[in-house]
Amino acid sequence: MQSERVYNFSAGPSVLPLDVLETAAREMTNYGGTGMSVMEMSHRSKAYLEIFNETKQRLRDVMNVPETHEILFMQGGATFQFAAVPLNLMGENGSADYALTGNFATVSSKEAKKYGTVNIAATSADRSHTYIPAQSEISASADASYFYYCSNNTIYGTEWQYVPSAPSPLVCDMSSNILSRPVDVSKYGLIFAGVQKNMAPAGMAVVFIDKSLAGHELPYTPKIMSYKTTIDKDSMDNTPPCYTIYMLGLVLKWVEAQGGVAEMERRKIQRAKLLYDYLDESKLFHGVAQPDSRSEMNVTYRTGDADLDTAFVKAAAAAGFVNLAGHRDVGGIRASIYNAMPIEGVAKLVEFMKAFETTNS
Amino acid sequence: MQSERVYNFSAGPSVLPLDVLETAAREMTNYGGTGMSVMEMSHRSKAYLEIFNETKQRLRDVMNVPETHEILFMQGGATFQFAAVPLNLMGENGSADYALTGNFATVSSKEAKKYGTVNIAATSADRSHTYIPAQSEISASADASYFYYCSNNTIYGTEWQYVPSAPSPLVCDMSSNILSRPVDVSKYGLIFAGVQKNMAPAGMAVVFIDKSLAGHELPYTPKIMSYKTTIDKDSMDNTPPCYTIYMLGLVLKWVEAQGGVAEMERRKIQRAKLLYDYLDESKLFHGVAQPDSRSEMNVTYRTGDADLDTAFVKAAAAAGFVNLAGHRDVGGIRASIYNAMPIEGVAKLVEFMKAFETTNS
Repeated sequence: MQSERVYNFSAGPSVLPLDVLETAAREMTNYGGTGMSVMEMSHRSKAYLEIFNETKQRLRDVMNVPETHEILFMQGGATFQFAAVPLNLMGENGSADYALTGNFATVSSKEAKKYGTVNIAATSADRSHTYIPAQSEISASADASYFYYCSNNTIYGTEWQYVPSAPSPLVCDMSSNILSRPVDVSKYGLIFAGVQKNMAPAGMAVVFIDKSLAGHELPYTPKIMSYKTTIDKDSMDNTPPCYTIYMLGLVLKWVEAQGGVAEMERRKIQRAKLLYDYLDESKLFHGVAQPDSRSEMNVTYRTGDADLDTAFVKAAAAAGFVNLAGHRDVGGIRASIYNAMPIEGVAKLVEFMKAFETTNS
Repeated sequence: MQSERVYNFSAGPSVLPLDVLETAAREMTNYGGTGMSVMEMSHRSKAYLEIFNETKQRLRDVMNVPETHEILFMQGGATFQFAAVPLNLMGENGSADYALTGNFATVSSKEAKKYGTVNIAATSADRSHTYIPAQSEISASADASYFYYCSNNTIYGTEWQYVPSAPSPLVCDMSSNILSRPVDVSKYGLIFAGVQKNMAPAGMAVVFIDKSLAGHELPYTPKIMSYKTTIDKDSMDNTPPCYTIYMLGLVLKWVEAQGGVAEMERRKIQRAKLLYDYLDESKLFHGVAQPDSRSEMNVTYRTGDADLDTAFVKAAAAAGFVNLAGHRDVGGIRASIYNAMPIEGVAKLVEFMKAFETTNS
């Protein structure tokens, strides 16, 4: 079955482990002898609550989430959190710090402006978001309600290689690198991640929130966006995206079976090194991001000739390496190499790039 | 495979057609020769856009949605719409009419109070929501921004058997009876439905909106809740719940193949008649809802003895008729008989009830 599958370098939704998909297919019409699909289960049923609670506990274990923090499953992906974060956390201070290192932090800051004052604590817009500012380049406010950043920039191919420090609680969008490395969750007030890259099919975000931050939402906050309500009702004030949570559970089992996030990190470094080492020696292709700011999840590169980039993407797709076009806002080439991308997928892509370079030099 | 499956009377998430689940299982690791699962597809890819556009068009055809109305796919289910409706439609009038005929209309009206004045145009709370008010009992305001009602009350087992008339645009929550009968969508300003009953697995709502109503949202409306943005971006301002949309597409194909909503209505009447006819003649069981207000999707009934109700639900589950307990707020017994419940499931349930009555009289 593997042989019929392509190598899928999509930035999200993206490749899932084949084992996980095969389990989902096998359990589709009758889960564990219940006589029904997980899709058909009442979210209040014993069978479903076991799936829900096991998945939540497994996420706590895999990500080492401390008891100070609650785990929430919320619909709407990261875009929903762009509003939920300021609605819940802007509070009485009425201002927050944002580090603008890419598209999604910028979009998020625009949403936050509806609910309070946004201080631009750092920005990489001056050099087209090709780098991550150093700690010394960050101007955090003393009285902000929180400090917001996005740890990996899917479009630009940059990634924070350090955890910034700030006087206010850290809020981080980890949509595109969660589960790819160990994280000290205790350093954060709130972490969220749209699940559609390293975790599950699209349709949900996972939130880790320091419980002491909840309960101060603005009066016009929609109930579905209230962290307090979601904590109090254990993510079931309304019907949760049950099947997406089940899929997340299968992915987490797979991560555990492989060796956890430490092993995910080892493989991530191995995959990224293969690709960046070649980009550094290639005469045709060159990486876009500044070397010390490179993402190990989304590798952006170019030939310097937009037509040749397009020809490469097309030729690669014909050879079974699909979704290599850069984001429509920036063009170029992008290989997203998430947890479920096997190392041989990257090795074969590098071989293909070498052959393409030979043909086109 | 059917023989291993139970008859699932869950109120939602609920039974799906077995054909649909088998197709989903078969296509799980490699959809239509693309070499990947639908779960792994970029929402911007050609393969996925075909699924998306076909599903949207099929929904337009099946529900006969006029071109004046746009079809939206939004995450968050009905609870999300409880906020989105007033945020988008409350507008300059600042008031709306609500008919309170059950739990979800009441919850929705409480959410709306955050954003404007709520006029209670009708309520059935005086008799525990066991009936639907007649048109003559409705006091609609001349200057409301919209008139809101919920067409089927899942918890109480009542259903509007007529379309109310009001001076302002009708807004209807059809979560638990959409696709069960033909609807004249042109009569409505907005219809929404959480998909987890008659349409798809939980994690989305479908919205039909008269385009002329969009574009007047309150300034603090989260972008993800803006109907205008969702219309302008064709439900893809952010990553949509791609797989849920795919599943909806499979269900719509099944509805079409069976004969469309006209056939769904014929079967619905047949299923409900089997159950209500028996309830009307039974000496042990009696229906809860007033006969002229009975729901043909959620049939609520009791023995008059709470312990015996519980014993019945337990015995039924052991015999393969599962999820028959009434909602925890009201107790009793509830059989949800959505589109995917085969007629023989209801026939066999009635046989089981008759045997239970004989044993317990």
